[in-house]
Amino acid sequence: MWILRLNMTDRSAKLEDVPDKYGGLGGRGLTSSIVADQVPPTCHPLGPNNVLVFAPGIVTGTTAPTSARLSVGAKSPLTGTIKESNAGTSWAPALAHMGIKAMIVEGQPKEKAKFWTVHLSWDADAGVPKVAFTPADTYTDGDLYEVFPRLFDAFGNVHVAGIGVAGERLYGNSGIVFNDLKNRPTRYSGRGGLGAVMGSKGLKFIVVDSAGAPGVEVADKELLKQGSKKLADALRSHDITKPQGGLNTYGTAVLINIMNEAGGLPTKNFSSGRFDGAADIAGEAIFEGNKERLGKELYNHACSPGCIIQCSNTWFAKDGSEIASCVEYESDWALGANCGIDNLDQIAQMVKLCNAYGLDTIETGTTIGVAMEAGLAEFGDAEKAIALIEEMGKGTPLGRILGGGTNTTAQIYGVVRSPTVKGQSMPAYDPRAVKGIGVTYATSTMGADHTAGYTIAPEILSVGGEADALDPEGKADTSRALQAATAFVDTTGHCLFIAFAILDIASGLEGVVDEVNAVLGTAYTVDDVDRIGREILRVERAFNEAAGFTKAADRLPEFMKYEELPPHNQVFDVPDEELDSVYGEM
Amino acid sequence: MWILRLNMTDRSAKLEDVPDKYGGLGGRGLTSSIVADQVPPTCHPLGPNNVLVFAPGIVTGTTAPTSARLSVGAKSPLTGTIKESNAGTSWAPALAHMGIKAMIVEGQPKEKAKFWTVHLSWDADAGVPKVAFTPADTYTDGDLYEVFPRLFDAFGNVHVAGIGVAGERLYGNSGIVFNDLKNRPTRYSGRGGLGAVMGSKGLKFIVVDSAGAPGVEVADKELLKQGSKKLADALRSHDITKPQGGLNTYGTAVLINIMNEAGGLPTKNFSSGRFDGAADIAGEAIFEGNKERLGKELYNHACSPGCIIQCSNTWFAKDGSEIASCVEYESDWALGANCGIDNLDQIAQMVKLCNAYGLDTIETGTTIGVAMEAGLAEFGDAEKAIALIEEMGKGTPLGRILGGGTNTTAQIYGVVRSPTVKGQSMPAYDPRAVKGIGVTYATSTMGADHTAGYTIAPEILSVGGEADALDPEGKADTSRALQAATAFVDTTGHCLFIAFAILDIASGLEGVVDEVNAVLGTAYTVDDVDRIGREILRVERAFNEAAGFTKAADRLPEFMKYEELPPHNQVFDVPDEELDSVYGEM
Repeated sequence: MWILRLNMTDRSAKLEDVPDKYGGLGGRGLTSSIVADQVPPTCHPLGPNNVLVFAPGIVTGTTAPTSARLSVGAKSPLTGTIKESNAGTSWAPALAHMGIKAMIVEGQPKEKAKFWTVHLSWDADAGVPKVAFTPADTYTDGDLYEVFPRLFDAFGNVHVAGIGVAGERLYGNSGIVFNDLKNRPTRYSGRGGLGAVMGSKGLKFIVVDSAGAPGVEVADKELLKQGSKKLADALRSHDITKPQGGLNTYGTAVLINIMNEAGGLPTKNFSSGRFDGAADIAGEAIFEGNKERLGKELYNHACSPGCIIQCSNTWFAKDGSEIASCVEYESDWALGANCGIDNLDQIAQMVKLCNAYGLDTIETGTTIGVAMEAGLAEFGDAEKAIALIEEMGKGTPLGRILGGGTNTTAQIYGVVRSPTVKGQSMPAYDPRAVKGIGVTYATSTMGADHTAGYTIAPEILSVGGEADALDPEGKADTSRALQAATAFVDTTGHCLFIAFAILDIASGLEGVVDEVNAVLGTAYTVDDVDRIGREILRVERAFNEAAGFTKAADRLPEFMKYEELPPHNQVFDVPDEELDSVYGEM
Repeated sequence: MWILRLNMTDRSAKLEDVPDKYGGLGGRGLTSSIVADQVPPTCHPLGPNNVLVFAPGIVTGTTAPTSARLSVGAKSPLTGTIKESNAGTSWAPALAHMGIKAMIVEGQPKEKAKFWTVHLSWDADAGVPKVAFTPADTYTDGDLYEVFPRLFDAFGNVHVAGIGVAGERLYGNSGIVFNDLKNRPTRYSGRGGLGAVMGSKGLKFIVVDSAGAPGVEVADKELLKQGSKKLADALRSHDITKPQGGLNTYGTAVLINIMNEAGGLPTKNFSSGRFDGAADIAGEAIFEGNKERLGKELYNHACSPGCIIQCSNTWFAKDGSEIASCVEYESDWALGANCGIDNLDQIAQMVKLCNAYGLDTIETGTTIGVAMEAGLAEFGDAEKAIALIEEMGKGTPLGRILGGGTNTTAQIYGVVRSPTVKGQSMPAYDPRAVKGIGVTYATSTMGADHTAGYTIAPEILSVGGEADALDPEGKADTSRALQAATAFVDTTGHCLFIAFAILDIASGLEGVVDEVNAVLGTAYTVDDVDRIGREILRVERAFNEAAGFTKAADRLPEFMKYEELPPHNQVFDVPDEELDSVYGEM
């Protein structure tokens, strides 16, 4: 097991032994620990002293189900905080199969706007990974749907990590793209502008050919088999995660109708919690629409190898051709309801543009929402919204403003209703209607992030308990517990969606702990999960504090305290002291 | 004496008694205390809960020389900190003459982009100020050089405070403009984006007609006369401030050659401390150039009534017509050396454009410098630089980016060399060549600000002692002492330029204290100056801490720690602990 260090100043690569302190970590726990250890907290995120870290989870690359996840870490140019952004992709197990626990990209070329491709493959003779740098000139400045096929033509059967024009141009809104199972540029570590960090290092693509690699070392293969089965059984039996269950049938967009009903679907730049056109863009509409257009029922597919849940959809045009994969709930909402747009074809077209340019769909949709409020387009004007995203692709001054993200766009146009925390835009749940998620947005080490502590589970879905979404009481405890559990899951390499099953089915969680013990040779119990999660959160929190963040940054945008959200006409009323208790008692 | 409160939500005005706690304050001490008391530190600077405070100094409006200064305070949209921005203008004594110690503008209209003019005059019958609101529709969206004359036509012999298009559009770089003695729109509270705060409140102009007003209450007129004479004598005898002395002859731009010689004149976006064209844009060149063009020696004029120093210049064209007043050192440097531009006619044209649009010249010049580094123009291309400022006037997307200020422009274009602290750009002294001013930039409650603690006096000018500019030792003590003295001076209502005389001539400082005692009826001695200054700084610092600023924000931009500045090839090497001691020992 190694740490692979790529230095972009002199384009050198170095294989290092894994220090003992990192040995028991993977995924988020590892990226956050490396960033905390190696990055000066007050450094410029796009300067020479930031690093970009890629780490598969602890069990990634093994038979553990739904575990092909990757964590990408750095100091974020969007938030200024530590950042872990997570994606499901075959690139993750490919790295794991080569024995690479983490890849650290550091330094930066003197020459600006010069990009390189790293080719990582397995040297069977030496029994080690090998690295080659080649100029990426022919791949820059293009649409990733056009560039990706050329990349596979050139490098063969590889797995790809990279950036689009957004990352090349150092946009605050720029993700890191990975291939899906059909080699489309659709899997994203989208949040936090990590594409710009990669761009600042002159790194366009990292293509990985893991052929011949030995695979992941497993301390106890029998235990891995047992653990994997327990988790697989749980996933296959829970209504949300089972085959032809909620996610496999309707995708994550199954939440559109649910959140609209709950009055918490942020609409027209967070000015209402209900959207008239919700039913037209809901997961049910996608399923039924595809059925009508294709003449058959289409269940969803996996984003990455070994997934049981298989929640990724594709939206097809009337002629049966693919418009885009995948129209996630967050994308559907951000580019749809939040912009007052109710046309799935146009929403899918916008998703595809985001994928083509290397943009985070959430940040893009919330940015367009703010731009609409600023008068750059009418709410509901999908053609203008598409044109605005195309500006981002072209890199015009307007495109650069929008590419700067939601908060930057709000600042530039003087829009006070900027739905952001620590510079990162809120996802698809209005915290005035779902109080617990507001606690997570406010206090997360990542800026506004639903995945950091998904209180929607108990507050809306009755998973892992039940809570009144409108009641501010007790939400700090809920958020804290879920933030810790999430940090653990993100460290294992499992997709967060296993949470639905393991929160409700005890043997599922046991299975995850078994898997981790099987790989690491540890003897954790389920009681260790919360402790391990909290340790990771404390590392992240300490980085943020050293970077200058105080409890004053653990607040929702001020307008949510005085603007009531229809239909419940509530403000965000979780007391500041309650917010401060999340990390005060971590 | 009153506090006048203008509520822009319902356009009402209220005269209030001055609370005891504010009675002994004026200028900066008063604006900062009011902001600290009334503004929630984490509020949105452009939202309904910020306030904008105008306060003449304690002795403003009396016979005290060089004291027609005004403090404007708010939470800054540029820095997120508390902000005091200071201007010299007849508007300040006009307010003081009406017995108004502070004017507080609060609330905001529901209707966006609708602007109002406030007409403040003296009701002789009632013996109180009176206020009228009228729509400002005919004054918006225009060049202030065209708008100002129409305003004087409409309102007669008034004094004017207002905003240009920059403030209307809520730019981060937007100042508050005041008339000079020729009723030109040239006197600015330029720093910190306070024009946007005024714009966010729908307030375009405040015109003041003080005819008939009773004047400033003075507790001891004889003492005032004595104090004024002591200060006047000091000002008239110091080489820098005396008639036909340094400032009256060459203006503040006398510093161009001095700072260039010292290797600390930031050139081409802070990439060097020496500028080849320095002599062509220096104060001496302005004096000699005017002499040649006008056929006579021209000494400088006062910006406001009662000034002895009279440092404001005017730059004339070959045909004898005025190009712009005033080409200050900071403007000359920012739009000149920092952009690699060595043509005074073009620099003056840019100054005039900044005045016309309501932009801070410092922030504008540093923004253009960053834009040049981003490739939007070549360094030295004055025509392109002028065109970029015109974009700001037009409000195009590019203009809005630039209008967002230096740090926003750097973020949008991914420029790491952003010469800013807390979002505000550095003035005309590179801290790698003048270490003490770096301590002030880093730790000031205002973001990067030379006026907050002008260590250039001892480090470069041998005023108030002598210090080696390149030596990092002891600079925290120097900066702290000057920051406190400055807070006191800014509270009295004197121009900071009296500091040259009062640092070197003891009777001058005694005179200032006499004046304050004369107005307030207090019995301060010169030993109280530091204490009073520190109290004000602690109020400001506490606001910033509650707004979320920690010592991590008291740092210079990272590049100054690893990029050496020619010709001395030094980095900024004052230790962090030394920076932290400035307020640690305040």
